[in-house]
Amino acid sequence: MTKTAAFGVQSETAPVAPMTIDRREPGEHDVAIEIEYSGICHSDIHQARNEWGGGSLYPMVPGHEIVGRVSKTGAKVTKYKEGDLVGVGVFIDSCRHCEACKEDLEQYCEEGMVPTYNAEDPKYGGLTFGGYSERITVDENYVLRIPENLDKKAVAPLLCAGITLYSPIRHWNVQPGQKVGVVGLGGLGHMGVKFAAALGAHVVMITTSPGKAEDAKHLGASEVLISKDPDSMAQHASSFDLILDTVPVPHDLNPYLNLLKRDKTLVVVGALDPVEVHGANLARKRRQVAGSIIGGIAETQEMLDFCGENNIVSDVELINADYINEAYERMLKSDVKYRFVIDVASIKQST
Amino acid sequence: MTKTAAFGVQSETAPVAPMTIDRREPGEHDVAIEIEYSGICHSDIHQARNEWGGGSLYPMVPGHEIVGRVSKTGAKVTKYKEGDLVGVGVFIDSCRHCEACKEDLEQYCEEGMVPTYNAEDPKYGGLTFGGYSERITVDENYVLRIPENLDKKAVAPLLCAGITLYSPIRHWNVQPGQKVGVVGLGGLGHMGVKFAAALGAHVVMITTSPGKAEDAKHLGASEVLISKDPDSMAQHASSFDLILDTVPVPHDLNPYLNLLKRDKTLVVVGALDPVEVHGANLARKRRQVAGSIIGGIAETQEMLDFCGENNIVSDVELINADYINEAYERMLKSDVKYRFVIDVASIKQST
Repeated sequence: MTKTAAFGVQSETAPVAPMTIDRREPGEHDVAIEIEYSGICHSDIHQARNEWGGGSLYPMVPGHEIVGRVSKTGAKVTKYKEGDLVGVGVFIDSCRHCEACKEDLEQYCEEGMVPTYNAEDPKYGGLTFGGYSERITVDENYVLRIPENLDKKAVAPLLCAGITLYSPIRHWNVQPGQKVGVVGLGGLGHMGVKFAAALGAHVVMITTSPGKAEDAKHLGASEVLISKDPDSMAQHASSFDLILDTVPVPHDLNPYLNLLKRDKTLVVVGALDPVEVHGANLARKRRQVAGSIIGGIAETQEMLDFCGENNIVSDVELINADYINEAYERMLKSDVKYRFVIDVASIKQST
Repeated sequence: MTKTAAFGVQSETAPVAPMTIDRREPGEHDVAIEIEYSGICHSDIHQARNEWGGGSLYPMVPGHEIVGRVSKTGAKVTKYKEGDLVGVGVFIDSCRHCEACKEDLEQYCEEGMVPTYNAEDPKYGGLTFGGYSERITVDENYVLRIPENLDKKAVAPLLCAGITLYSPIRHWNVQPGQKVGVVGLGGLGHMGVKFAAALGAHVVMITTSPGKAEDAKHLGASEVLISKDPDSMAQHASSFDLILDTVPVPHDLNPYLNLLKRDKTLVVVGALDPVEVHGANLARKRRQVAGSIIGGIAETQEMLDFCGENNIVSDVELINADYINEAYERMLKSDVKYRFVIDVASIKQST
């Protein structure tokens, strides 16, 4: 075991604060990683504050957008060596034998993936602890290789926010020239705009806020559609090939559904919440509503390689660890462009 | 023009009663049809009573599940001759040049299909009048050929209820051995069970009513799942390849969504109404909710040919025209197995 400085919470009402956790020595297939950057995901707030149906386990060290360098490898590790730039995302293991795992879709593991934090560790016991921490030890098969040419701190959010958009964009097979809508311009939405634009789609940022138009175009959107303007919405009716809905709260899908062409799909990636759907809006054009969560290991690696080739990263605001609680409050007001990333060097200084 | 005896309504509060309407003489591409049977669809009630947002046009002659024989053909008609057994379904024309029409998906015509009744006739003026009537004149391209070996009266509901289930079963590509759920055992649901069973699927009737189990098995269901029994629902979780939801009122899709395997679809065919969906139930297994309406002319013909080969018809209760109002009341109580069909010979006697 290695004593490791971390930031975490002791209960659902406690602030995020310094703590010390144990990290295991690497087993045969493990790599030990010295963490450099850790993104803050909206789900960190939900879990730290126990807002997801009472499933939070304390003490908790959040963080599942992790970038660092390999410091040590187990005897049988073949994929990585000391010094490699690597990442860890939302899960650190899965059953490896169900249909989903066999299809490289570990995020849908039928026995349940093992979350990077806020979970019981089925193999080693105790709780899993995430990336608000100096180091982490992970099986090499659940570690990603990060292209060295990218801005490391801005890579961190790719491990969750990035793959959450990349996976549906690939699964629903976005092609050059297709009209792709992204609803909501935040941590998820800004990655959707970047990926769809990089694939040659005609990207339309769909937002309630006219003030976001300039930013959206800067990120790669060809057009901005103000969803509160009925005339504009009517002009775009039945014209989209795919809509990626990143709104993170319960909401009405019907205005967006009506933007889809026949046989096309709206993918909910933000709301693990009730959403409103009207049967007639589906039936009239055989439209579909789907959901999607993150991506598998192979697809996450594909995304990182794609980012390396196309120089795509997140837009981030780098913070020190002692700013996490303030960052949470600002996120709840959507006051971040577009993702906070913790400079993990600051953790050691604070503990 | 031909004076024709019919049953229809003069206003949203009037009962269905005898009336006389004009039918045009066949144009070059038309066939005149002497109607023998006309099914009663639940949508007839909604339209007769103006329950769909005020769009009803009076006087109205409902009926879009029409079976009869060709009595006369226009000069350029090539597909049909006098005496042929034919059918007319939910629409009698469409734009013929949009993408949907070019793909044989006239039901999704981008300029709007022309409904068999309760519509302004864009070509001939006046209103379209449906099948509660002695005769109808329709362009041959919107007429279906009916296999002579089938029970004619029981064919009528295939033209709407039948194709409404057949089309999604084919579009989502039901294969032998797949597990297909049908929610709701009525005019639509009983056709879903018959078609999916005929294609070799393992059909599960999903119903709130244990009393429907025997009937469902008689129709071809392999199993019956009582949706109000949480233990049974849990046993069937994540096991279905396709679910066809025929419930005709607003309802909660979530219990059914959780029955789907990863990447599979629930198709709403009954409810042109709000339905409840939870984002997490979609996302956890990348499930989809879709809608579907009837089918195109080519697919409806394919269905009728399939029915001829497999001896599939609807289960019907034949009534005289003067019983229509009572039939409506019984339908509202789900008191019919499974579709009322009007013996059109009774119309002339009543007028």
